[in-house]
Amino acid sequence: MSPNRTPDSSRRSDRSRRAIYDAALALVGETGYARTTIEGIAARAGVGKQTIYRWWPSKAAVLLEAFLDLQERASEQAAGRPAGGAGEAAEEGVAAGEGDAGAAAYGIPDTGDLTADLKAVLRATVDELNDPVTAAPTRALAAESIVDPVLGAAFVEKLLEPQLGLYVARLRAAQAAGQVRADVDPRVALELLIAPLTHRWLLRTLPLTHAYADAVVDHALRGLSTEA
Amino acid sequence: MSPNRTPDSSRRSDRSRRAIYDAALALVGETGYARTTIEGIAARAGVGKQTIYRWWPSKAAVLLEAFLDLQERASEQAAGRPAGGAGEAAEEGVAAGEGDAGAAAYGIPDTGDLTADLKAVLRATVDELNDPVTAAPTRALAAESIVDPVLGAAFVEKLLEPQLGLYVARLRAAQAAGQVRADVDPRVALELLIAPLTHRWLLRTLPLTHAYADAVVDHALRGLSTEA
Repeated sequence: MSPNRTPDSSRRSDRSRRAIYDAALALVGETGYARTTIEGIAARAGVGKQTIYRWWPSKAAVLLEAFLDLQERASEQAAGRPAGGAGEAAEEGVAAGEGDAGAAAYGIPDTGDLTADLKAVLRATVDELNDPVTAAPTRALAAESIVDPVLGAAFVEKLLEPQLGLYVARLRAAQAAGQVRADVDPRVALELLIAPLTHRWLLRTLPLTHAYADAVVDHALRGLSTEA
Repeated sequence: MSPNRTPDSSRRSDRSRRAIYDAALALVGETGYARTTIEGIAARAGVGKQTIYRWWPSKAAVLLEAFLDLQERASEQAAGRPAGGAGEAAEEGVAAGEGDAGAAAYGIPDTGDLTADLKAVLRATVDELNDPVTAAPTRALAAESIVDPVLGAAFVEKLLEPQLGLYVARLRAAQAAGQVRADVDPRVALELLIAPLTHRWLLRTLPLTHAYADAVVDHALRGLSTEA
């Protein structure tokens, strides 16, 4: 899926590639996934449609890579944000360069304080989900993934699972440190942490705030029952 | 939004209404929300489109009511199912008749055993989400709600919030019985229970099974942390 670049053409290619990503994200946010076409992306980006076909096999491939790029940029922004919280891990994602680095956009810090680390990363996630620039294209891709199993599988494999893996790793470290019970399944645990945020964001049931992110972490870590 | 019926026409109306619901659900499942039209629903149901316009103001109104009806039917089915789990509360929903009764489709039993009651209702939810008949239209409505804030708000108000209210009531009863910590916010707590199921179902990350429903309940009630 990666653009095929030679050293000579790489600067011009980078400019075109970024223009294509921006056009793809803008169009899918404005008109939805179904009405976004390679021709429309090419026209808006000011490139020939053959340029797009040379680099990507399909509209879905362009969009998924545009989202990976968007995650990288969000990650750079988070790294530069004074109260960003997840700064260190996010920088690591950026330093790793392109390709799979988008996976580290929600990088999870490990300061030894699991509660604080989870609150930092879930607050950063809240900020990203509430970002008006990325909200429309992200909603369009999520909506299409729900009804299109092939696109959905690519979305999960390329974008979602690499992020979920970071939670598994952080929760395993907390288990090793004796902070998380040994009988906790990290895969189930991470879904208790992130699914409530996704649920509020997708369905707009109630406001998605930092206070909510904190409450989710507190409820998940301490549990609901009086019998611990 | 309710059909305007007179006693004379009510039997014929009931038949037409059910045919319209079935047509609306089938079409939205097959072609998606955007391509489903009042004309298409009328043709498939074998009624004139004026019949639909006389009873409902819009396509969204037809579909939301079709979903309320679908919930009622699922609830009737759950009540008749030998190992249904949520049988008692579901029957109560059916006995209450139509209108708001769809809200009780996921009725939550109160046997005094919170763990068992939550597992029963989440297992029943898993079965409903995995039902191949309802999956396609439900996905189509969810996808459209994600990109259309007006439809989304109606979906949440009419279909989702009445169900969430049942969880709040059950969790408050458990708090009163001393089984749930007093500092738990029932609204946050219910999202830890149901959002993971929705997340797996919408994004198809991993299989949505009874074992998963049980694990979500166990993790949410006991918490992740070793410090209770």
